Amino acid sequence: MTDKSILEPKEKIKCDMNPEEFRKYGYQIIDWISNYISNIENYPVLSQVKPGEIKNTLPKSPPKNGEQMEKIIGDFEKLILPGITHWNHPGFHAYFAISASMPGILGELLTASLNQQGMLWKTSPSCTELEQVVLDYLRQMLGLPDNLFGIIYDYASTATLCAIAAARESLNLKIREEGMCGRNDLQKFRLYSSTETHSSIEKAAVVLGIGQKNVRKIKVNDRFEMKVDELEKAIEEDKKAGYLPFCVVATIGTTSTTSIDPVPEIAKICKKHNIWLHVDGAYGLNAAIVPEMKHIKEGCSEADSIVLNPHKWLLTPQDLSAFYTRKPEILKRTFSLVPEYLKTSQDEKVVNYMDYGIQLGRRFRALKLWMIIKYFGHEGLASIIREHIRLAKLFASWVENDSDFELLAPVPFAVVCFRFKPKEVKDENKLNELNEKLMNTVNESGKIYISHTKLNGKFTLRFSVGNIRTTEDHIRDAWKLLKGYHLKL
Amino acid sequence: MTDKSILEPKEKIKCDMNPEEFRKYGYQIIDWISNYISNIENYPVLSQVKPGEIKNTLPKSPPKNGEQMEKIIGDFEKLILPGITHWNHPGFHAYFAISASMPGILGELLTASLNQQGMLWKTSPSCTELEQVVLDYLRQMLGLPDNLFGIIYDYASTATLCAIAAARESLNLKIREEGMCGRNDLQKFRLYSSTETHSSIEKAAVVLGIGQKNVRKIKVNDRFEMKVDELEKAIEEDKKAGYLPFCVVATIGTTSTTSIDPVPEIAKICKKHNIWLHVDGAYGLNAAIVPEMKHIKEGCSEADSIVLNPHKWLLTPQDLSAFYTRKPEILKRTFSLVPEYLKTSQDEKVVNYMDYGIQLGRRFRALKLWMIIKYFGHEGLASIIREHIRLAKLFASWVENDSDFELLAPVPFAVVCFRFKPKEVKDENKLNELNEKLMNTVNESGKIYISHTKLNGKFTLRFSVGNIRTTEDHIRDAWKLLKGYHLKL
Repeated sequence: MTDKSILEPKEKIKCDMNPEEFRKYGYQIIDWISNYISNIENYPVLSQVKPGEIKNTLPKSPPKNGEQMEKIIGDFEKLILPGITHWNHPGFHAYFAISASMPGILGELLTASLNQQGMLWKTSPSCTELEQVVLDYLRQMLGLPDNLFGIIYDYASTATLCAIAAARESLNLKIREEGMCGRNDLQKFRLYSSTETHSSIEKAAVVLGIGQKNVRKIKVNDRFEMKVDELEKAIEEDKKAGYLPFCVVATIGTTSTTSIDPVPEIAKICKKHNIWLHVDGAYGLNAAIVPEMKHIKEGCSEADSIVLNPHKWLLTPQDLSAFYTRKPEILKRTFSLVPEYLKTSQDEKVVNYMDYGIQLGRRFRALKLWMIIKYFGHEGLASIIREHIRLAKLFASWVENDSDFELLAPVPFAVVCFRFKPKEVKDENKLNELNEKLMNTVNESGKIYISHTKLNGKFTLRFSVGNIRTTEDHIRDAWKLLKGYHLKL
Repeated sequence: MTDKSILEPKEKIKCDMNPEEFRKYGYQIIDWISNYISNIENYPVLSQVKPGEIKNTLPKSPPKNGEQMEKIIGDFEKLILPGITHWNHPGFHAYFAISASMPGILGELLTASLNQQGMLWKTSPSCTELEQVVLDYLRQMLGLPDNLFGIIYDYASTATLCAIAAARESLNLKIREEGMCGRNDLQKFRLYSSTETHSSIEKAAVVLGIGQKNVRKIKVNDRFEMKVDELEKAIEEDKKAGYLPFCVVATIGTTSTTSIDPVPEIAKICKKHNIWLHVDGAYGLNAAIVPEMKHIKEGCSEADSIVLNPHKWLLTPQDLSAFYTRKPEILKRTFSLVPEYLKTSQDEKVVNYMDYGIQLGRRFRALKLWMIIKYFGHEGLASIIREHIRLAKLFASWVENDSDFELLAPVPFAVVCFRFKPKEVKDENKLNELNEKLMNTVNESGKIYISHTKLNGKFTLRFSVGNIRTTEDHIRDAWKLLKGYHLKL
């Protein structure tokens, strides 16, 4: 503290861009995005670079002195853009196709500039209260009960981890205080999901110390839905064998086939056995905003926790995962830790969202969803999801009516599972090879991007419709492409 | 599948904004941000709304039909902005003061519009490879060894959770497979940190099933640095008592006082006892990019994992937490789960970042940091951190030389812990009350925002310098304000 020289002003402190520069480059980037989206179909959907290609074109060291924004924007276009797989492309049909809608992009721009850290109500009242409001809007659109507490997380993996952590805490076994090791009073816990459940459930079991072996994967029926009688049998078996069943994860829209587990029946079993029910609706539950799709949310009112991802189907740029629970006091008991430096005089009167999750930091995610809901309106959002479902069912009808193709799963939402199956090929291994080759070939064309899964050992093509710019023409072209290529195989 | 009516096109599908509209409203929001930042000092730093005030001004239900962007932007200004605590304000001196620099804001704008999901290399080669490149730039600027694997997480809470999960996995006790409950072969684990460590360490212990009671908080010296002899004593004690010490968290820049634990000595103890060493440099380690601050990273080359948050002091809008480990194979073993639908033909040749953390989804965070490093350059970034440190030390020198104030901790970075202590007041409770009142009074002024902590039972004011727009004039004004108000108390 006594070295006076350290207190003297230094020369040359670098400043931020001035407001005029920001305006200039801001306009330039807005123009770039506007052109990019207008010309999106000129890009190959799937990036065509080889591993290492992007890395190798970039300088090996950071610049000592700053560079001009012109150069930075130029480098972005020249060096970074080739390594982009265009999730905005209407020909993106892999995984779950998603959309960053323009109101959502503008929302993220405001979020970045406000740079709110909403750990406490006080550090950003709007971050906290708009989150409450926008999650209530979403809840109303979905038709979920009004006794739910909502919170925004980043991804469904986090939401599911928090749900299962709350389920563990709800056992009242002092795991928070004492942990799980070296205790004679704890049985092995058991967690249930179907064989089709997302990998994040198993990852949560790993993180929480439950263990992969204690995730019992219940068999599915021929529609890839969890077999309820198998679930009940497994729970009873486990209880007899001295395990402690504590959580069931049911899925609305599984990742492979978008199947829907029978939530109402699962809820009854959970109630009977006093087990936490978490509903993973990351993809599918979004569709409940469409009036004629309301049936998909049956049983959700009995769930202890529910997750859905507006960044999957509600036109929201990543990341925004919406989590609801009717037991917020247990979620809070699981996670709340308030050091002295985070105590505030409002603590009794407000929600401090840091108390309800893993991350202390919270950026202002609600803003973009608020802008999206206002821009599109409930009916506008529903019209887009409805159209995606129509396009997928249309595609599925072409598959069904083509003797060289085979539909491999029902289409409850907007993903079609199918394969190429010419009459002359009987061997399953050969069919798998053919379909993998077909997938790689159409993906290399740059026109569409589809992904795969395996269903009953069959290499299955997945065609997902979810981009805001995908039209009937696009899926007709995609179908032609698939038909055309297979003739050449 | 047979109901044909579902395949007919529906009327009225809502479209996204057209490119011209996007340009128009994009420009408008860029202008708004430019004006907002130019006029930032006209806003009260700390939002002056009451709990519920924002929520109550917003409609109770989502709109059925879409609204015009003019109205949405208008509502944002009128209804949301009053509930914003201005983290961009140069008078923000609470917690850790941060900055969303303009190149970073523009980077986030591009990230939102590209909407990359970099779970696999293939789904965004640039997301993966730019992450590798930019984390290597950061590593070089910090002077960390070149054998480190880097990954970007959202917040340090996540990074620390991943570090401690990897530490647990490194024990080779089949916790991933078998879990931790109902096992006779597992001792109680023990995790060590100082009494000054961030709450996220304890939260990680809760999540991972270690338990709060198994986090041993080692005493600190009068500089708030972990006492190494106490650490070694605790480890030996625990070993004798049948516990399994498995992880030590050392901090570079603790949250209360920014103290620096003696990492080199801690590293020696960890090596001797074969314990994972995680260094939490979320705030402080950023300063190692300044040549004369290099000493703060001593011992980091011996750490198993390290975290620092560029969103804390490297001008990066939230969120971006940088994590390094010399044991990526253990991190991967902890988290990797690859379902069929995520297998790719490049899996052997590339890094798929989904294998190294909790979240499957990954937005393109590297882009903004790349733009920031290029715009400011290493020297530009260093000049800003150097200035923040100078300003904090200058502020501390005023505190030290004022007989009515008292410095309560050393100032190794840019946070000053102090209190008002007029000679006439001897009672500690009275002093605590006075200082809390002083804090609330200056915060209500809207001119500055400071926060507090408790040090040895003393209510301590924290003055953090970290905003890019904070100048010597600002801290002189802040000091005048503090001095002026205390005369009125």
